[in-house]
Amino acid sequence: MASSTLISLDAMGGDHGPAVVVGGVKAYYSLYGGDGVRFLLHGDEAAIRAEMARLHVSDDLCQVRHTDKVVAMDEKPAQAMRRGKGSSLWNAIEAVKAGEAQAAVSAGNTGALMAISKLVLRMAVDGLERPAIVASWPTKRGFTAVLDVGANIGSDARQLVEFAIMGEAFQSAVHGVARPTVGLLNVGSEEMKGHEEVREAHAVLRTDAVPVNYTGFVEGHDIAAGTVDVVVTDGFTGNIALKTAEGTARFISGLLKEALTSGPLAKLGALIAMPALKKMARRIDPSSVNGGPLLGLNGIVVKSHGGATAEGYANAIRVAVELARSDYLTKVSANFARLAAAMDEPAPVVMGETEQ
Amino acid sequence: MASSTLISLDAMGGDHGPAVVVGGVKAYYSLYGGDGVRFLLHGDEAAIRAEMARLHVSDDLCQVRHTDKVVAMDEKPAQAMRRGKGSSLWNAIEAVKAGEAQAAVSAGNTGALMAISKLVLRMAVDGLERPAIVASWPTKRGFTAVLDVGANIGSDARQLVEFAIMGEAFQSAVHGVARPTVGLLNVGSEEMKGHEEVREAHAVLRTDAVPVNYTGFVEGHDIAAGTVDVVVTDGFTGNIALKTAEGTARFISGLLKEALTSGPLAKLGALIAMPALKKMARRIDPSSVNGGPLLGLNGIVVKSHGGATAEGYANAIRVAVELARSDYLTKVSANFARLAAAMDEPAPVVMGETEQ
Repeated sequence: MASSTLISLDAMGGDHGPAVVVGGVKAYYSLYGGDGVRFLLHGDEAAIRAEMARLHVSDDLCQVRHTDKVVAMDEKPAQAMRRGKGSSLWNAIEAVKAGEAQAAVSAGNTGALMAISKLVLRMAVDGLERPAIVASWPTKRGFTAVLDVGANIGSDARQLVEFAIMGEAFQSAVHGVARPTVGLLNVGSEEMKGHEEVREAHAVLRTDAVPVNYTGFVEGHDIAAGTVDVVVTDGFTGNIALKTAEGTARFISGLLKEALTSGPLAKLGALIAMPALKKMARRIDPSSVNGGPLLGLNGIVVKSHGGATAEGYANAIRVAVELARSDYLTKVSANFARLAAAMDEPAPVVMGETEQ
Repeated sequence: MASSTLISLDAMGGDHGPAVVVGGVKAYYSLYGGDGVRFLLHGDEAAIRAEMARLHVSDDLCQVRHTDKVVAMDEKPAQAMRRGKGSSLWNAIEAVKAGEAQAAVSAGNTGALMAISKLVLRMAVDGLERPAIVASWPTKRGFTAVLDVGANIGSDARQLVEFAIMGEAFQSAVHGVARPTVGLLNVGSEEMKGHEEVREAHAVLRTDAVPVNYTGFVEGHDIAAGTVDVVVTDGFTGNIALKTAEGTARFISGLLKEALTSGPLAKLGALIAMPALKKMARRIDPSSVNGGPLLGLNGIVVKSHGGATAEGYANAIRVAVELARSDYLTKVSANFARLAAAMDEPAPVVMGETEQ
């Protein structure tokens, strides 16, 4: 029997508020069992209790902590930091800081969640302007963790190595990969070896400075091919790669739908093949990959998509539980310390490789 | 009746050499009419003439210029520059330099083609380490031109504006868009506005410094949505976005194929819906977008995919012909001059916007 884990939820965040958050709790129990997991819900108590009653979610599973205050979905991060104290989002994070809960989940405003998480929990590493976000990317071989997709601009070599450390620990905690392979995203042309920071991170990762299973450079097409378990890139490139892939998937799904409704024969064919097509759609269903942890904080915070369904939200809860129950935080912090030692010492062999 | 246009072809480049090049010439005539277009083929005369005889391509359409020398598909660019003189690839470019042909097409080694094109034709702009490559990206609304996808590392603001100028002229010459809209690829987060060079290019494009129809920032998902006709980005991000999208398309097509062959019912449905599915596949068929011009050179050079079919090669020829017959080169050079004038003058209003 697993020990008890308390997960703190921002019940007011997201497009659907308590309906999806309480629905997500219920779906989590029915989909994943929820062995020993309890919840602390922050927000409008009446609204939360109404959903609990409607969905038959018992008081034993969920404590409710009332607050009137809510961070709006369109509130600017700076404003949310100034005015957000005491809001459901803030209190959800605060419970992790206080050691009361082991992780927090919010489907609220991403910018505000990042800013408040950073303010309340503090970054575990210097230099990152905001927490990194990891995407669980469906691939031929399962899921590849891609980070940073959270728009950190201008990551230097050290940050790329930190992403590698966090991505590896995430992949092994959440997707159960024992010794994840790690690749650095780069362009594939022969004579170019990408940005200086990419080449420098490559030189560090190739050594024993950090114990990740680094396999070298990968290219854009390697992501969906599942060539490696973890793909490391800066937040600008990662954010654009993720959104480009989502756009491509949407475009092709749209073409497919158009084709399969384009005439009576096509419709008949689609009807007959429907069970197989539905099974395929589930493999790239956004619900199954919902829940991106904010990495690099002193604590576990998971972002759910604002428009997620209850099943999607349940997956974000699952990610939070897996991380909370794993050695994720201690492993990452040990490897950060190891990296710091390696980078502060003179390491002529490592850095020599990056000289032009 | 259009005036005569001579296109110079590297008949030995690509995975299939003269078979696909001569096949491409034939396909070009049958698919696009080929009104007034003639070809100059460089390579092994016996091999080329054998293909011409096999495919019934007449001497009136194709002159052959013999050379024994070939740049290998795996030859390093530096080596190709040193040893490539007199090769079929080199001679194809040289004919453009000499004013004999109006454009060149090669399916050869990309790195070698870039290096030799730059050496022989010279860049029309300073600062670019290699020619930019534009991808014609299939979208909901037709084709969007995305550049640079050619792995120029570290494009500054001026280069991004130059990409906008070249992309706009390309889109109007090759895809017939009268006044293409242009967007700058960026991350979508509220408070971040991307790299400094992206913000600077944005500030210049918003003014009248260059006459492109600039609409502002776009995100990754806007590419496949066809939000704008031209998407401008640096060569690192563009190369990764393109390969990520290709990987995603391949992954989804693979899932679809798997689903539609997963059992007797699925197979039956697929069979009935096949004409509609085939029609859909043609919309994202790589042949229909084959042919990426190398931009920023004093002359027109088009790269065909090394593994292209004859139909794909015909499209690369079409791109070369459209560019050669348009005002592409003069328009680009006029706009480069205009940009140079705007950048060299003090422009306090423009640059003031980028101050932090």
